[in-house]
Parts: sequence; structure tokens; C-alpha cells
Amino acid sequence: MQTRDIDYRDPTANLRGYLAWDETATERRPGVLVFHEGLGLGEFAMARARMLVELGHVALAADMFGDRRQARNLEEAAKLIGELRSEPETLRARGRAALATLAALPQVDASRIAAIGFCFGGSVVLELARSGADLKAVVSFHGSLATRTPAVSGKVKASVLVCTGADDPLALPDQVRAFEDEMRAAAVRDWQLISYGNTLHGFTNPDADGSIMRAALYSEQADRRSWASMRSLLDEVFR
Amino acid sequence: MQTRDIDYRDPTANLRGYLAWDETATERRPGVLVFHEGLGLGEFAMARARMLVELGHVALAADMFGDRRQARNLEEAAKLIGELRSEPETLRARGRAALATLAALPQVDASRIAAIGFCFGGSVVLELARSGADLKAVVSFHGSLATRTPAVSGKVKASVLVCTGADDPLALPDQVRAFEDEMRAAAVRDWQLISYGNTLHGFTNPDADGSIMRAALYSEQADRRSWASMRSLLDEVFR
Repeated sequence: MQTRDIDYRDPTANLRGYLAWDETATERRPGVLVFHEGLGLGEFAMARARMLVELGHVALAADMFGDRRQARNLEEAAKLIGELRSEPETLRARGRAALATLAALPQVDASRIAAIGFCFGGSVVLELARSGADLKAVVSFHGSLATRTPAVSGKVKASVLVCTGADDPLALPDQVRAFEDEMRAAAVRDWQLISYGNTLHGFTNPDADGSIMRAALYSEQADRRSWASMRSLLDEVFR
Repeated sequence: MQTRDIDYRDPTANLRGYLAWDETATERRPGVLVFHEGLGLGEFAMARARMLVELGHVALAADMFGDRRQARNLEEAAKLIGELRSEPETLRARGRAALATLAALPQVDASRIAAIGFCFGGSVVLELARSGADLKAVVSFHGSLATRTPAVSGKVKASVLVCTGADDPLALPDQVRAFEDEMRAAAVRDWQLISYGNTLHGFTNPDADGSIMRAALYSEQADRRSWASMRSLLDEVFR
């Protein structure tokens, strides 16, 4: 497996992503974008990118904050996220810049690209789907489901999978209900939502021990189950 | 593969189930109960029992109506179901009679038994879980989630998986929410719920074409996905 940093940009920032691929592959492979958590692009998203290569894909862990900035604490993260959330078009454009970068790579079959995201990154992939990005699938792991720009009928191309903790205070039952209603109202072609009981925020990250964010707690079981559901969906859409 | 009818009884009825097993197996295998839809034990549940044998299990398709009665139409089905639903203890006892029958078979490892159910049968497996039956897992496919006898804390032993259509009029969003709240309130150790978008009632049954029940419609996709999720859970709990 090879990995390297990859620089790209959008109109407002220099972005430094992380690319992982199997250099022995002789054919173009499906591509998967990985969108990082609220703390920025770090080891967690990079490790997921490498796990995706093991599944036969080319993976690009995107940089959503610019210059691969990483928040040192929740306060900084909230500021960085808040800036992007207040400008949905900037957020979507930045996600699309990563998509264009991945799609242009010689290793990648540009007709087969998906995006996954964790926490903040989960909301990014849902925004990309809402924007009509050319993605076969998006998977949100404990992402926020709320949006200022709800899906509109006929626009969403991606198959949507939401994996959410039933006790996640950042995705409360009312938000889950609102999201499902949004999907129904927009007649999104293919969506599914999995609710994991006894599961909080951040359940995929072994470092989530409640210390940085009290509501973020790793669950080996929900992590394993959600990753398996992602695999099944990618197998379906990349077939 | 071998199949045969199997007679058993509970205090109020003679029951005629359908057993399927691999006669070449040399070790005791996990057992899975299959609970039928509202029309009674027929070819659909029997086929699922045979599919479970292909996954390495011994399967008993239970008879919940007695004398393997089958409803000729929705009205008859509603009457048979209504009788059982009005007497939760009778319903639970009848489910437990099937469990005891399967557990006593020489082919079965009685420490590893699960139950799955479709439509009416989905509500039966949830009732069994609520009653504290000795099951490793229960899986409800488009079952009703409402109950007169909600789960109480510490009683549910089974891992619970609910697979439900997001547009199923028999499991409306309010009922889904109430079910999740029931699981939370009873601190059920392991539960998950999958909501499939654009999916109605009866999505596992290729014969569901809206003719018998307008809201029951087969979905190849939701059928495949829910069966895969069931497989994953059985692999987990039978490990």
C-alpha cells in the first residue's frame, strides 16, 4: 500500500489531503472520500483511508479546514466547524474540491466514487448528497443530520446510509425523525438509517473515551456493525 | 437437507410446525425459530427455514394459529391475530412452546437459539424477547412494534434487531419512536433498528404485490439488506 499527502485547493483555501492506494493494482479502482471529525484531518481518518484500500478502493482523506489545520480542543473545533456551517456553499464547494481531486487520479474509476464521514464529516457527506454530487453512495457515521439546505426532489444521486447512536445527543430522536421526513419529502431514491441502541456520539473512534467530549464514546460493537453495513453498501453500488 | 412436519402443543392448541435441518451435520447446531406472517404457516416461512439451514442452522417454522391453520384472506388473518394479541400470555406461551420443541431436538445446541419473524411473526419474536425468553437474538422483519406488555428493565436477554420499512403504515414513525423509547427505558442490553427508505410493509415476500394488502410490497433491495443484517447478527451471537 502507498500513501502520500496530496495538495489541492478550492476558491478559499489550500487543502492538504491524504491519499492511500494499492500500487500493485493494474486496473482503475473505485474511489472513496473520507471526511474527518471535528478536530480535523488526523490519524483516525487516515487509518480509515487505509482500511478502505484493504477493501479494494482508492481512498482520499479530505482536508476540510485548510492547511490541514487541527483543532486542539472542542472550542477550536466548534469555531472551525461553525465557520463552514454558516456558509453551506463554502462547505459544499470544499467537499466537491476533494471529489474532483479524487476523480482525476489515474488510479481511480471516476464513475464509481463514494464518500464516508465521521461526526462533522458525516454532515459533510450528507451535504454533498443533498447538493447532487456525483457520488454512488454516502455513509454518515454519527454525523449531524440537521441542515440549512434540505434535500430537494430529484437532486440526490447517492445512496444514503446513516449510522447513528440512539443516545447521541448530537442526533436526537427529533432530528432523526426530521431527517427521515426530509428524505421522504425529497423522494430520495435510496436511503436507510440504522439506529444503534446504547450508543453515544463518536462510536467509531477508539480514542473517544468521554474525555474530550463527554457524549463521545467508542463502541466496538457499533463500530464493527456500521463498518460492515458500509462495506455491504459499497459492494452494492460499486458492483 | 431434510424437512418434516413436527407436532407439538401448548395448553390451548395442537401445533404443527415445520422442521428443516442438515442430516449430514455431525455436531449440534444453532437453532432458529421462524414465525410466520398473518396468513399462517405456509410456503414463505418454510422457505426461510430452509435458507437458514443453508446458513448452518437447524430451523423450526412455528405454527402460531394451531392445526397449521391458514387464513384465506385478510379478514380471517385479522381475526386469528386479534385473538392472540388480546391474550399476550397465550401468544407468548405459544411462542415458548416452539422454543422448547426446538431446544429439545438432538440436532440443536440449546445454548444457541434465535428467533426471527415476519409481519405478525415479527411482533411474536419481540414479545418473546420482552418475556425474557432464552434467546440469543430476535429479528423482526416488518413486524408491528406496539405492545400491551412493554419490556421491563433487566428482563430482555436477546439481542434485538428490528428491520422496518420507513413507509410501512403498520409501523409508523410514532410507533418506531415509541419502540426505541421502550428499549431505552428498559435498558435493553443490545438493540438496533434499521429503517429502509421507500419501503412498505411485507418487503421480504416476493408475493407481496399489493393485491392482498395494498401496503404490502416486496422490495428485493430491502429483503436482501435485511437478510444480510440478520446473518451478521446470528454470526455474532452464535460465535
